[in-house]
Amino acid sequence: MRLPRNVKLVEVGPRDGLQNESRIVPAEIKVEFINQLSETGLKVIESTSFVSPKWIPQLADSEFVLSHIKRKKNVQYPVLVPNKQGLENALKAGATEIAVFTAATETFCQKNTNCSLEESLNRCAEVILLAKKNKKINIRGYISCVLGCPYEGEVKASQVVPIAEKLFKWGCHEISLGDTIGVGTPIKAQLLIDAVAAKIPRRKLAAHFHDTYGQALANLLAVLEKGVAVIDSSVSGLGGCPYAKGASGNVATEDVLYMLNGLGIETGVDMEKILKTGRFISDFLNRPPRSKLGQVKML
Amino acid sequence: MRLPRNVKLVEVGPRDGLQNESRIVPAEIKVEFINQLSETGLKVIESTSFVSPKWIPQLADSEFVLSHIKRKKNVQYPVLVPNKQGLENALKAGATEIAVFTAATETFCQKNTNCSLEESLNRCAEVILLAKKNKKINIRGYISCVLGCPYEGEVKASQVVPIAEKLFKWGCHEISLGDTIGVGTPIKAQLLIDAVAAKIPRRKLAAHFHDTYGQALANLLAVLEKGVAVIDSSVSGLGGCPYAKGASGNVATEDVLYMLNGLGIETGVDMEKILKTGRFISDFLNRPPRSKLGQVKML
Repeated sequence: MRLPRNVKLVEVGPRDGLQNESRIVPAEIKVEFINQLSETGLKVIESTSFVSPKWIPQLADSEFVLSHIKRKKNVQYPVLVPNKQGLENALKAGATEIAVFTAATETFCQKNTNCSLEESLNRCAEVILLAKKNKKINIRGYISCVLGCPYEGEVKASQVVPIAEKLFKWGCHEISLGDTIGVGTPIKAQLLIDAVAAKIPRRKLAAHFHDTYGQALANLLAVLEKGVAVIDSSVSGLGGCPYAKGASGNVATEDVLYMLNGLGIETGVDMEKILKTGRFISDFLNRPPRSKLGQVKML
Repeated sequence: MRLPRNVKLVEVGPRDGLQNESRIVPAEIKVEFINQLSETGLKVIESTSFVSPKWIPQLADSEFVLSHIKRKKNVQYPVLVPNKQGLENALKAGATEIAVFTAATETFCQKNTNCSLEESLNRCAEVILLAKKNKKINIRGYISCVLGCPYEGEVKASQVVPIAEKLFKWGCHEISLGDTIGVGTPIKAQLLIDAVAAKIPRRKLAAHFHDTYGQALANLLAVLEKGVAVIDSSVSGLGGCPYAKGASGNVATEDVLYMLNGLGIETGVDMEKILKTGRFISDFLNRPPRSKLGQVKML
């Protein structure tokens, strides 16, 4: 099995995770949560989203959170921005890395962002162009529903490739491929990676897999074999799936880390600290950790 | 990715699953459960265990269950037997396939079967020898703790290989390699398969993986790549882990089947019927299905 020696874990718990939790977490707890994550060895912590609080009340405190966290050297704190206004607010609050997002299907764009896929891409282009004026900024591009759509079902790699290509050409340093509803399986995930990697360097791709159907780790193993070396995950499996009530969402950081450790892949992340941080936020949410690791207490 | 075209799923829910559920299921429900499983396309359903009811009260009704199920042609209904007495009782109740069991470590044998590893192997030898007098009988051999032990920790492939070799030489038609506490990771699982397959035909090996640390599907993918084509699983993830309270045990049949279907691997098993049977037994146990598939209700 040929695998990368190092993997960069992108922690999405504070943003993608908390955004899908029904309980709203106070800003001070979020700050403490991100500060704890900063001490685990993670190099990237997606911290919040500058979308309208109308749409995502869970993250209405993005400005406060971003400006109050204790930034650690060598750790990046990207924030999600949906449009020009979001970018301006994010920059004002001190963002030094951002992420833009779109989807692989027309219907998902319509339902999720209330615009067509074309409009969604135009918004991304606009944000990227503006953000690039600030030369220091790193821009991540998210594509949702790359292995299946809750509305359109099957998604082909050929639908994803041109979108990924555009985002990369416009200036995204990394393209995160999201299996938003977790329906993918290993060979399908590999075929997608090969298709996208025909146009974009493999090392610029991130796997953002959800565990809704229990396939996330198997899919991650499959794409690691294809040279993917950036993995998005959420501590304690924060998040859930807005398209399947009560089901799992983001793959849990702890479980990914356990597999990577077992495979001898270096991440620089401390398991004990991750588990502790997972317990901290789960306790606050008043429920057991949703990671398998967090649930195991041997003997 | 080179994978087998066909996989045989060995359903262990009625035995390994129910044996680890705290709620005792009435014999009639077990019979109905097994009869439903018989209609799903499964070719092997491990139905019960002829161990002393003193040790496993959950399966004290083994004779009733085995003699009341509606046997379907081309479906096997193996039962676990711990010793000569168990074999006699099993044969009296009409068993036509049996399974013997031992473990990879001394301490697990002591704690689990109250005898040394050597004595445990002697018991297996005795049962196999007796069983083989009945020429028609198929004998499966289980080895526990092949990727880790709750008492001894790390387990090396070199500890597993001689045990597997003995069981096979004595007459087991299939060796089921059990990651009893689910601590294995993909490369370790592959190394084990390669080590055992140096002595026993690869197609005679079964992967019996638990999902305690969330690794089961990734490990299964890894050993499928190594030519393993027999997988043990438990519908609705019945079972849990006796060594980690509240944690997952056997990997769920539904989740394995979803992955295999996605990989284009033929099993002959009907997903809808498996899901229905999983709901039947979960409803009886008064809890939601423990498979991811069973928890997903999209949109």
